Amino acid sequence: MKSAVSSLVRSNNSPISRTLLYHSSKPISQSPFFLSNIPKNLFNQRYQKLQFSPNSTSIMASLSKSEQAREPPALPLPSPPLTKAISFFFFCLFICFIVALIFKIGLCQLSVTPDKERNIKHARKAIEEAGQKGAQLVLLPEIWNSPYSNDSFPVYAEDIDAGGDASPSTAMLSEVASRLKITIVGGSIPERCGDKLYNTCCVFGTDGKLKAKHRKIHLFDIDIPGKITFMESKTLTAGETPTVVDTGVGRIGIGICYDIRFTELAMIYAARGAHLICYPGAFNMTTGPLHWELSQRARAMDNQLYVATCSPARDPGAGYVAWGHSTLVGPFGEVLATTEHEEDIIIAEIDYSILEQRRASLPFTKQRRGDLYKLVDIQRLNSH
Amino acid sequence: MKSAVSSLVRSNNSPISRTLLYHSSKPISQSPFFLSNIPKNLFNQRYQKLQFSPNSTSIMASLSKSEQAREPPALPLPSPPLTKAISFFFFCLFICFIVALIFKIGLCQLSVTPDKERNIKHARKAIEEAGQKGAQLVLLPEIWNSPYSNDSFPVYAEDIDAGGDASPSTAMLSEVASRLKITIVGGSIPERCGDKLYNTCCVFGTDGKLKAKHRKIHLFDIDIPGKITFMESKTLTAGETPTVVDTGVGRIGIGICYDIRFTELAMIYAARGAHLICYPGAFNMTTGPLHWELSQRARAMDNQLYVATCSPARDPGAGYVAWGHSTLVGPFGEVLATTEHEEDIIIAEIDYSILEQRRASLPFTKQRRGDLYKLVDIQRLNSH
Repeated sequence: MKSAVSSLVRSNNSPISRTLLYHSSKPISQSPFFLSNIPKNLFNQRYQKLQFSPNSTSIMASLSKSEQAREPPALPLPSPPLTKAISFFFFCLFICFIVALIFKIGLCQLSVTPDKERNIKHARKAIEEAGQKGAQLVLLPEIWNSPYSNDSFPVYAEDIDAGGDASPSTAMLSEVASRLKITIVGGSIPERCGDKLYNTCCVFGTDGKLKAKHRKIHLFDIDIPGKITFMESKTLTAGETPTVVDTGVGRIGIGICYDIRFTELAMIYAARGAHLICYPGAFNMTTGPLHWELSQRARAMDNQLYVATCSPARDPGAGYVAWGHSTLVGPFGEVLATTEHEEDIIIAEIDYSILEQRRASLPFTKQRRGDLYKLVDIQRLNSH
Repeated sequence: MKSAVSSLVRSNNSPISRTLLYHSSKPISQSPFFLSNIPKNLFNQRYQKLQFSPNSTSIMASLSKSEQAREPPALPLPSPPLTKAISFFFFCLFICFIVALIFKIGLCQLSVTPDKERNIKHARKAIEEAGQKGAQLVLLPEIWNSPYSNDSFPVYAEDIDAGGDASPSTAMLSEVASRLKITIVGGSIPERCGDKLYNTCCVFGTDGKLKAKHRKIHLFDIDIPGKITFMESKTLTAGETPTVVDTGVGRIGIGICYDIRFTELAMIYAARGAHLICYPGAFNMTTGPLHWELSQRARAMDNQLYVATCSPARDPGAGYVAWGHSTLVGPFGEVLATTEHEEDIIIAEIDYSILEQRRASLPFTKQRRGDLYKLVDIQRLNSH
C-alpha cells in the first residue's frame, strides 16, 4: 500500500517537510491487517500506555498539574466517526488490530469574480470535481461568492437563516453536500442578519443539513503603512462564539482568516478535542509571504492536529489581491500538500491515527504546567 | 545610515525573511536627528494614538474585552532602559523626537567537550570575542560546561547558590560580565541544590551580580521511536517559576530548550512586558530540522517580540548530537541572523523601536477576545 503521507504531497518545496516525509514511519492504519468491531477507545488506551510508562515518573507526577492548564480540563481526542471495520484476520495466533482512519480532503482554491451567479456555479463545479476525485470533505475559500471589499459585503450578503432564495450560495452547498454525500466546510460569505453583516462559514453534513455556522470572531483590522490597510470592522460585526462541529470526517474547529492569528482559539479547539482546524482565509500580498504558512504550521505543531486552509486564487487586478497557497498541514507542523496562487483543487489524505502517534512522541498535553499557567475556555466553562 | 534590519543578517536563506528585509521601512530610530530627555512613555503614547484611530470603532468597542484575555491584564511594553539621549537638533522650527533603542547581541554557539575546565575557558574566550565585537548582551548554549546526558548531569553539576569554587562556571560568567560591562544570559549548566539537580540558566548584569536564575520548567521527556528518546526527568527536577528579568538591555524572559514548546510560557512573558525571550537550547537531529526554527518564529510572531536562541555546536561523535542553528528572530517572525551547525559567534542588532511599529501594524493585544478565552499567569495573579 502506498504511503499515506507521501501520497499527500502535490507541491512541497519545504526542506523541513521533505525531511519529515523521508522519516515518516508507516502508520499502523496502513498495515494489510484489519479487524472489525474495534472498541471506541482502543486508540486512547493504547497510547496512554505509551505515554505513561513506569520510567516517566516526572510525567506521572505532573499529571494533575497538566490537567489544570486548561479550564475546563481538555477533552480526550474522540474516536473519529469514520472508523471503518473492513475485515479481520488471524495470523500465527496473533491478532492485529488495525483501523483505517484515512480520508481525502479537497481544498478548492477558486477564482472569484464580481458575478455572483458565476461564482456559485463555479464553486459547485469545483466541489463536484473534488467529490469525483474522492474527497469526503471539501473546503472553500474565504468570501468566495463576492469580491473582498467593504463596499461589496452589503451588496453580496445573504440571509443564511432564511435560506432558499434568500441565500443561493448556501442553498447550493446544501444541495451538493446531500447529492454527493460529502461534508462541506463552505469557506465564507457575507451574511446579513437583521441590520448586521458577518463574515460567515457554514458547515454542511452529508445529509445536506447545516451543521454549524461560524461567524469570524477576530475582524481583520490591520494597518501596515505603505503595504496594506484594511478595516473589516467598518462594515462587519464580529461573531460571538468559537465553533467546533462533529462531522462524518471528525471533529472540526472553524476559524476564518484573521482568526488564525490568535493562538488561543486554536488552543481551545484542541482542548475541545478537534482533529482538524479549517481556516478559509484570504491573506494578502504583504501578510501572505510573511505569515500564512508560518501561522498554519505553528497552530498545527503546537496543538498537534491537522490544519487546512483555503484561499481564493490570486487576481492581480482585484482591489484586494489574495496570496493563494491553500495548504494542508500535519500534526508535526509539516506541509503535506500545498499549491501556488493560481486556481487549483488540492486533493490530499488525512490520517487521524497520526494524531495519536505524534502525541505519544511529544506528550505536551501531559507536560503542561497547570500550576503556572491556565487557558480558560470561557463559554465551555460557563456551559458546565 | 545602514538599515538596522539588513545589517543584522549573516546567513539567511529563508524566502520569507528575504521578503521582509526588502519591505522593511527604515526604523525611526535611525533618523539622523536625536533629542535628549525623551519622556519615558513617549513611545507608548505615540503608538496608542496609531492603534486607536477614530475609524477603528470595533477595536475601541472590544478594548475592555481584549484586556480580559490576560489575567492579570497584560502590562504595557516598558520603555527600554538603554534609551540613549545622544543629542538634540532644531530644524526649520520642527523638533524631531528620535530615540536610539539599538544594541548588539552575541550568540555563542560553542563546542562542548567532556573537559569542564576547557569548556569554561572556551566560553570565556567566546564571550570576550563577542564583547570586543560590540555585543552588549551575550547568550550561551544550553548545558555548555558538560556533555548533554543524564550520566553527566550529576558529575558536572555545580552549587550555584554557594558560588565561588563550588561553581566555577558561574564565577567565570560573573567576572567577565563585570569586567566587560555586559549582560550575560549564561545558557545553562547542571545545578545541584540539596539532593536535587536542575537545568539552570543564570543571568548576570553589567556589575557582575546574579540578576536571575531560571530552572528549566518543562523537562525534555520525549519518545520518537527509532529517532530520539530522552528522559531528563530521570535525573533532573523541574523548575517552579517563570523568569522575567529587567536588564540593561531590556526586559528578558528566559526559557530553556523544551520550554519553547509551550506557547503559554511565551504568552505570559509577553504579558509581563518582555522585549526579548532568550532560549538556550539543544534541539537534536530529529526535532531540530522539524521544529527548531518553526518554534522560534512562531513565538516571536504570535507575541510580537524578539526571540534569541543559542545551541551548542554539533559534535557528530557525541552521545546527544545537537542541531546547532542558533538564531535571532524579529517580532514579525522573521529570521534576522542565523548560522549552521559549526562553532560560531553571531553578532546581530536588536532594535526595540521595531516592537512598537509591529504592534501598531497588527494590534493583536487590542483585538483579543477576552470574552471567549483568557490566559491566567498564576504566579503573577497570586502575587497581586
